[in-house]
Amino acid sequence: MNIKITGTGSYIPNVITKNADFHLHEFKNLDGSDFPHSNEETIEKFKAITGIEERRYIDDSLNTSDIAFLAAQKAIASSNVDIETLDYIIVATNYGDVSKGSIQSDTVPSMATRVKAKLRIKNPKCVCYDVLFGCPGWIEGMIQAQAFIKCGMAKKCLVIGAESLSRVVDQHDRDSMIFSDGAGAAILEASEETGGILAHETATHSLSESKYIYFGKSNNQETDSDTRFIKMNGRKIYEFALINVPNAMKSCLEQSGKGIDDLKKVFIHQANEKMDEAIIKRFYKLFGKKIPEGVMPMSIKELGNSSVATVPTLLDLVVNKKIENQELQKGDIILLASVGAGMNINAIVYEY
Amino acid sequence: MNIKITGTGSYIPNVITKNADFHLHEFKNLDGSDFPHSNEETIEKFKAITGIEERRYIDDSLNTSDIAFLAAQKAIASSNVDIETLDYIIVATNYGDVSKGSIQSDTVPSMATRVKAKLRIKNPKCVCYDVLFGCPGWIEGMIQAQAFIKCGMAKKCLVIGAESLSRVVDQHDRDSMIFSDGAGAAILEASEETGGILAHETATHSLSESKYIYFGKSNNQETDSDTRFIKMNGRKIYEFALINVPNAMKSCLEQSGKGIDDLKKVFIHQANEKMDEAIIKRFYKLFGKKIPEGVMPMSIKELGNSSVATVPTLLDLVVNKKIENQELQKGDIILLASVGAGMNINAIVYEY
Repeated sequence: MNIKITGTGSYIPNVITKNADFHLHEFKNLDGSDFPHSNEETIEKFKAITGIEERRYIDDSLNTSDIAFLAAQKAIASSNVDIETLDYIIVATNYGDVSKGSIQSDTVPSMATRVKAKLRIKNPKCVCYDVLFGCPGWIEGMIQAQAFIKCGMAKKCLVIGAESLSRVVDQHDRDSMIFSDGAGAAILEASEETGGILAHETATHSLSESKYIYFGKSNNQETDSDTRFIKMNGRKIYEFALINVPNAMKSCLEQSGKGIDDLKKVFIHQANEKMDEAIIKRFYKLFGKKIPEGVMPMSIKELGNSSVATVPTLLDLVVNKKIENQELQKGDIILLASVGAGMNINAIVYEY
Repeated sequence: MNIKITGTGSYIPNVITKNADFHLHEFKNLDGSDFPHSNEETIEKFKAITGIEERRYIDDSLNTSDIAFLAAQKAIASSNVDIETLDYIIVATNYGDVSKGSIQSDTVPSMATRVKAKLRIKNPKCVCYDVLFGCPGWIEGMIQAQAFIKCGMAKKCLVIGAESLSRVVDQHDRDSMIFSDGAGAAILEASEETGGILAHETATHSLSESKYIYFGKSNNQETDSDTRFIKMNGRKIYEFALINVPNAMKSCLEQSGKGIDDLKKVFIHQANEKMDEAIIKRFYKLFGKKIPEGVMPMSIKELGNSSVATVPTLLDLVVNKKIENQELQKGDIILLASVGAGMNINAIVYEY
């Protein structure tokens, strides 16, 4: 028995916010001090590092569970799965539903339950839960789903990554420009076809890394509000990722029994263009190789970093030939990899 | 290979709040109207239905991840497991860390990562995630852990249920008296010993039940605040549970190959004494039997309903002979069962 993706789907939010839209923002450092240069310079530098030119936000009327459902619908349609045969709906998320204008996470019932209710699935044996695992949550949900399939607890699973970071960003933090909203989904099934998940790898580094991404106060200390926002220590994350992510990817590839030259595509969490490029460079260097042209499809330029949604969205875009010069052929060996809050790292080697 | 619990632990919060402490509360109905009778009568009726005389809240300085850690420490000590050999830390929770005085859920990084950091575990291969599954989250975490052990992804897992409902209750809602705080934990391991998990069962009923437990506004409509609190439709839940929980328990027992007369104890989610009694009565009735005396240890009288924490806490109390006339002997067949937001139901048949 193999474990294969039989359908993918994604939801790209409607609201396009360009870098220029941040020109009037009052950015502050973490200590509350002003930036030494103009917003134009800040934004120019931001773009050079992250590669982000614009990002997507959901409409005010929508919530994370809504876009999880919209991505799920597309994955279901593309796989042709009978929804009443799904054994699991797993939603990777971190903040749940945060309505526009609210600062509260609405997490009960789970996003997965909300998706099931919206899909009008009757079968009570379709089990719904949310997994909180930072940005690598969708890949981890896939790893959990394959475990359930492998040990006979499931045959068909819907795994969704959905997040609306626009609802938890600090307008006074330059990093707010990185974050975006999105949802991606896949159907994972037991299959008699060749290929599927060949290997997986996960790690949680928390001894000194657990607070690299956290919930903290606004950089604008003049607002005496106690409200918390998503915060990150970008420099520490960059250093951490550069050391640990390539090693985890290598370990996963080795477990799969495939060689570096077999690898056709690497779908990496769209965190930051420069960081992703440095990771892939170091990964190939571990094998004494140069990066093959076009091996790493990217969506960060237009979509920003939508947390758990980047990898399934990127996969869906390439499957559907929505990214220039990128496509997948049957038999292609691909690597999915992510890094984020925890700090968590994971990877899957997959034969398409 | 069998899959056995090798240690249990729980944390019982310090602050005891008695029913009498609610005498000055201004309770309202969902529609904002006042209660037709006095608080004394309301509380007397509440006690008669739920069986709750007092409940526990955490100190103001503590948070859900702190008590998850405290319960974990005890489970680790009782199992004697080397913490560096743990493959998973799974925390079942629903609201994450909500600091005293805050209305925000702090969910990044996961509670599981926070526990690992507090335990000072170095091994990055110890994977940490949170599972959101309503009150049945801890049992579901155990079912997931056994799947990882069964398919060779893990040998030893720490599964914790931790919640601080005192941070999300509406003081104007009579149901606020039901909810409490707590944490329970167990170590689940691959074992050569006889016994362990014999069967498990899970269901998510969401077609018309997904909003039976939800996040809603205060019953006091004079506070124009948009703040949301844990809310439930008690009548609907009671009817739902009475129909579906006994059937799920029966199905799980049948899968285990054990008979109703083999069953020594039933550890049921401490939701409401009358509801739990009605469930167990109907469960035995499905087999044409009367309830054996002492089969259902209870903790709700003193501990209230602490969501995900009730089942592991109750198990830990009985293992340690902390509940009068209750104990477990090697070889005893027990059933763990829960019901809650989703609506989710699950059960495990276990040979102690």
